[in-house]
Amino acid sequence: MTSTLITGIGELTTNDEELGRPADAALVLDGDRIAWIGAASAAPAADEILDVEGRAVLPGWVDSHTHLVFAGDRTAEFEARMAGAAYAAGGIAVTVEATRGATDAELAAGLRKHVDEAAAQGTTCVETKTGYGLTVADEVRAARIAAEVADEVTFLGAHLVPPGADAEDYLDEVCGPMLDAVAPYARWADVFCETGAFDETQSRRVLTAAAAKGLGLRVHGNQLGQGPGVRLAVELGAASVDHCTHLSDADIEALAGSATVATLLPACDLSTRQPLPPGRRLLDAGATVALASNCNPGSSYTSSMAFCVTTAVLQMGLSVEEAVRAATWGGARALRRETGDGAVGVLRPGARADVHVLDAPSATHLAYRPGVPLTHAVWRKGSRVR
Amino acid sequence: MTSTLITGIGELTTNDEELGRPADAALVLDGDRIAWIGAASAAPAADEILDVEGRAVLPGWVDSHTHLVFAGDRTAEFEARMAGAAYAAGGIAVTVEATRGATDAELAAGLRKHVDEAAAQGTTCVETKTGYGLTVADEVRAARIAAEVADEVTFLGAHLVPPGADAEDYLDEVCGPMLDAVAPYARWADVFCETGAFDETQSRRVLTAAAAKGLGLRVHGNQLGQGPGVRLAVELGAASVDHCTHLSDADIEALAGSATVATLLPACDLSTRQPLPPGRRLLDAGATVALASNCNPGSSYTSSMAFCVTTAVLQMGLSVEEAVRAATWGGARALRRETGDGAVGVLRPGARADVHVLDAPSATHLAYRPGVPLTHAVWRKGSRVR
Ligand SMILES: [Zn+2]
Ligand SMILES: [Zn+2]
Repeated sequence: MTSTLITGIGELTTNDEELGRPADAALVLDGDRIAWIGAASAAPAADEILDVEGRAVLPGWVDSHTHLVFAGDRTAEFEARMAGAAYAAGGIAVTVEATRGATDAELAAGLRKHVDEAAAQGTTCVETKTGYGLTVADEVRAARIAAEVADEVTFLGAHLVPPGADAEDYLDEVCGPMLDAVAPYARWADVFCETGAFDETQSRRVLTAAAAKGLGLRVHGNQLGQGPGVRLAVELGAASVDHCTHLSDADIEALAGSATVATLLPACDLSTRQPLPPGRRLLDAGATVALASNCNPGSSYTSSMAFCVTTAVLQMGLSVEEAVRAATWGGARALRRETGDGAVGVLRPGARADVHVLDAPSATHLAYRPGVPLTHAVWRKGSRVR
Repeated sequence: MTSTLITGIGELTTNDEELGRPADAALVLDGDRIAWIGAASAAPAADEILDVEGRAVLPGWVDSHTHLVFAGDRTAEFEARMAGAAYAAGGIAVTVEATRGATDAELAAGLRKHVDEAAAQGTTCVETKTGYGLTVADEVRAARIAAEVADEVTFLGAHLVPPGADAEDYLDEVCGPMLDAVAPYARWADVFCETGAFDETQSRRVLTAAAAKGLGLRVHGNQLGQGPGVRLAVELGAASVDHCTHLSDADIEALAGSATVATLLPACDLSTRQPLPPGRRLLDAGATVALASNCNPGSSYTSSMAFCVTTAVLQMGLSVEEAVRAATWGGARALRRETGDGAVGVLRPGARADVHVLDAPSATHLAYRPGVPLTHAVWRKGSRVR
């Protein structure tokens, strides 16, 4: 790998408190790290120089919530929903069946295809989950494949009680042999705390077992209605609680007073014709907000973080700066990767060389030009991927 | 130009009543026309064969409402709006000043850039308007440049009373010397019938004068509130009334009983934080609906017809089939180009060779995968443009 000096930057978003949005700045990538940021006039030598001709530069998107180890298709379910059928958690079982029937190579190829598709749109750090296996062998397989491709792996054995299984028997398995077998491949554990999936007691059991095993916690909560998910996530110190579509005032207060990130998945809410989450109220209360795609074949089959940013600005009351920050730094914070050597979601010396150049003079164009593909160039871990 | 046989089509949308969505079909383009559609097994010989490997094929988008002869930028106004400022018609004056100050070459280059950007996203037929000149010379210049690049040109001298001018004096000019001078370059005339722009009496005067001069009629109506626009458009037999965000029951009834197309511009409504138009109610009542981008630097700076389709499905209650039809056949109907030799918005022998291949097995993916760039290949007038 060689060093690259990026000059001609029209607007530089760093998400770094000290650097801010420096004017007339240049950037040096060296190997898989940002080596230098400073005044263009003082830029050091580099192996190659790229003039981006006034374009905006920002950290690559951090997509902190996806479900990409899957097989099969749910186009028909989507079409039925757009014709009026309600979304229900049970549709997951369709993907479980297809995923179990796929080979390792098919699952890995599908995951790579989606990660590459996301990278071509500026996503440089991807979390993904198990949860379409729901047997020890299938969950381990999913976690192993995920660990080969994604940046972060989350164990989601508690996605759904498999059709035909007894809930308590299944939870014994999830919290026992399945957790033991998957833990070597995963940094996080998650539970789908929702009517039709797991209730508060069951969710608490899963999260407590995972924490005891040394895994960090994430929660799917408050997607289809108000419920205990947010409260539980905050109580147990989860890094993130995801969806947050239906929040009480107490939920918002709890999030604001915690280190738990509220990860909003607006493409999912639109794709299931749910209301959009209260991003403006969360920010005003002082909560930390992330935006993620929730890319999965059932409820949100998009890899477009730009679509999430656009929606947050046009329909959820966020400013462009807040939405871009939520989709970069916010995602990194939800994965506890926003600081230190190799940090993501930020551009500063020592951070990972994850860089997104827009075909636009400012990040504002992400919302000003909805739907227009604006990704001009992308580096992921210092490698140019677009 | 050579002939091209397209095979391996996963799903073919023709918008032709007899052809419908034929299974196992193939398509031959010859010069700038569709030469043949039929069973793949019976396909005639062609100079080249392209196997699209199961991808969906549909007519190119027909974007029947844009304002692309402009100079300058309104990023700052957009940012202010996203921070809470209201949208008002007066912002147009900012673009008028920049457009008057630009050279012919600058305006033509800007128009070409936007038309090419749209074509790369599957748009193969584009209407565009004058309306940022507002003097005889500047309106003629805009129409002349538009006629060189766009498929359809609309005279919109009645976009706004220029700052400092008297409304009635300006209308004398619009309906007299300006109309006379622009008419040779334009097929259509339009008026911005809205509070802050032109009232019913003024709008009627503009439209009546244009009709007497032999121009077809279009109307900007009912964007910021209920008003006389729709009623007037139907009464005067306009081909289309555009925006239709705020409609009374009587407006919907009038549209359903007329040949006037209701052209919906959802990206504009989102970009100005207006409600979305009642597309579902219009279709249920029997009105003809088109979807268009309204691409312009003020209220809707997108060239993405896919974004409009996605929004119509996810948020306006249209099925994918209805939304795709509205963005192809509906736009063509709004421009009175859906029938005959060289028809657009349809795929049938004799239609213009405007073809859009998606990187997806079905058009459903346009809504199932919001924001993901899905354009794989595009032919415009028989030329491959992507
Ligand atoms: Zn999820
Ligand atoms: Zn318009």
